[in-house]
Amino acid sequence: KRHHSTIRYLASTRDFSGTVNFFFQPNEEATGEFQGAKVEHADGQSGGELMVRQGLFDLYPCEQVYGMHSWPGLDAGLVGVKAGALMGSEDNFEIRVRGKGGHGAMPHLCIDPLLVGCHVVTALQSIVSRVADPVDPLVISVTQFNSGTAYNVTPDVAELRGTLRAFDPTTRAMAKEKLVHIAQTTAEAHGAVAEVELHEAFPATINDAAKAELAAGVAARVVGRANVVEPKPTVASEDFSYMLAARPGCYMWLGNRSATCTANLHECTYDFNDDVLPVGASIFASLVEELQPAGE
Amino acid sequence: KRHHSTIRYLASTRDFSGTVNFFFQPNEEATGEFQGAKVEHADGQSGGELMVRQGLFDLYPCEQVYGMHSWPGLDAGLVGVKAGALMGSEDNFEIRVRGKGGHGAMPHLCIDPLLVGCHVVTALQSIVSRVADPVDPLVISVTQFNSGTAYNVTPDVAELRGTLRAFDPTTRAMAKEKLVHIAQTTAEAHGAVAEVELHEAFPATINDAAKAELAAGVAARVVGRANVVEPKPTVASEDFSYMLAARPGCYMWLGNRSATCTANLHECTYDFNDDVLPVGASIFASLVEELQPAGE
Repeated sequence: KRHHSTIRYLASTRDFSGTVNFFFQPNEEATGEFQGAKVEHADGQSGGELMVRQGLFDLYPCEQVYGMHSWPGLDAGLVGVKAGALMGSEDNFEIRVRGKGGHGAMPHLCIDPLLVGCHVVTALQSIVSRVADPVDPLVISVTQFNSGTAYNVTPDVAELRGTLRAFDPTTRAMAKEKLVHIAQTTAEAHGAVAEVELHEAFPATINDAAKAELAAGVAARVVGRANVVEPKPTVASEDFSYMLAARPGCYMWLGNRSATCTANLHECTYDFNDDVLPVGASIFASLVEELQPAGE
Repeated sequence: KRHHSTIRYLASTRDFSGTVNFFFQPNEEATGEFQGAKVEHADGQSGGELMVRQGLFDLYPCEQVYGMHSWPGLDAGLVGVKAGALMGSEDNFEIRVRGKGGHGAMPHLCIDPLLVGCHVVTALQSIVSRVADPVDPLVISVTQFNSGTAYNVTPDVAELRGTLRAFDPTTRAMAKEKLVHIAQTTAEAHGAVAEVELHEAFPATINDAAKAELAAGVAARVVGRANVVEPKPTVASEDFSYMLAARPGCYMWLGNRSATCTANLHECTYDFNDDVLPVGASIFASLVEELQPAGE
């Protein structure tokens, strides 16, 4: 079976029983940040979160959910299926270190927020390397550090921003708490003050073990057992995570790397590989027929 | 003697022998930086440096030079005179740490220049605290740290800027060399590269011991011995330093702090205390009469 449209195929063949719901999930990628700026939606939330919170599964009761993401890290023809954590949770943070500015030649009259900010950034490294369980993935990236405008003036404030990624909710909670504690106490150690804001973005994308096994079996019948791989997970994030947090299911990666496009996700030269569309459509169609055989 | 204009007084009384030259020294404060931006003069230099380099003392031969700065750190009526280093040398620097940017959730594929920049800033502290002779004043202030624009993207580069102040030329040279070495090797330790630029601004303002003693004696006759004080020096800088580097002399501070203006130098609310003008004018006039008595 090689289909270009799961919905058209299932509607015309109707070789299944029961109900299948297809969801268009808008506004992925946008919560909390967009091209470096904080994005304020009317509701402050991504599409996946908003749909679940507005009662998606009350309006359309589902026993299980499945999704798929094109994935340039896998060759076209491969399908990545993995039980458990596939993609990370995301929290973004802002740390404002407030000191006391003044003449750059009179350090004794200042409290240097730039130096304190540097101590905070280096101290934060220890959360990943010394506090987290080594087998629980965690990333804390300080991606912005802005302080000062003149050669000769110690600034009043240093503004740090960054992102925190994890799989395990306990590790995630620990890391957020430690981040706040280390920023505040490191600032206090130098007579400065750190104000920390945490912006919750996405939970981790966690596949149900039984559903992942089922999906892998279906995918194997479409692309062959050898072409279904268990991928190394990533702490990049995904708002289908909200659906998987509400219902058991499986999020898959559809390999699309080809000789004509080597660009990675989010690169401006990325070009979707149309050749893999029938692979994805066929897996979804087969999944429906497998889960709800006709005549049952 | 209380005069409002040294030149008018000397020209009308002529109670001295020989020649006195008065210099208007333009373009103080501006080399290398102006309100945070690098200033490129036609000649790239401050007034004091330019005048000396263009042959001031060939055109107007002088055996000694004297200058004075209004000083809100001293009460009106006081005069600050000190042998040796009164104000600091100034060098400004830029450090560009180049790493390898990428996805903020994929640290293993990046070389984080922001973290390396933080290591550089903290490592630079050891020059003042562990390398310099404790009795030789030195200031290294990193006053600007700019890196990154998005929550989710590890940047390619971190840009640091700051200022280096010293009295002793050997300490100054050591600190500049160490700054470059620490920045480069710290970056190298993390697989990054640091490009360092040093912009020489001013030498230290060093008073000749004999000329300072002479100036203090003259000042004492104008304001009374008790009102001539030896001030604590500052590593704020001054381009009269170029004149003092070429000829022995003394730079003095004229106290002008009053109840009506408590603002410090460079503050926008600073208001010169006109009441101290006769004090300064009289000291200069007395200095000329003392150095070159009439009839000699």
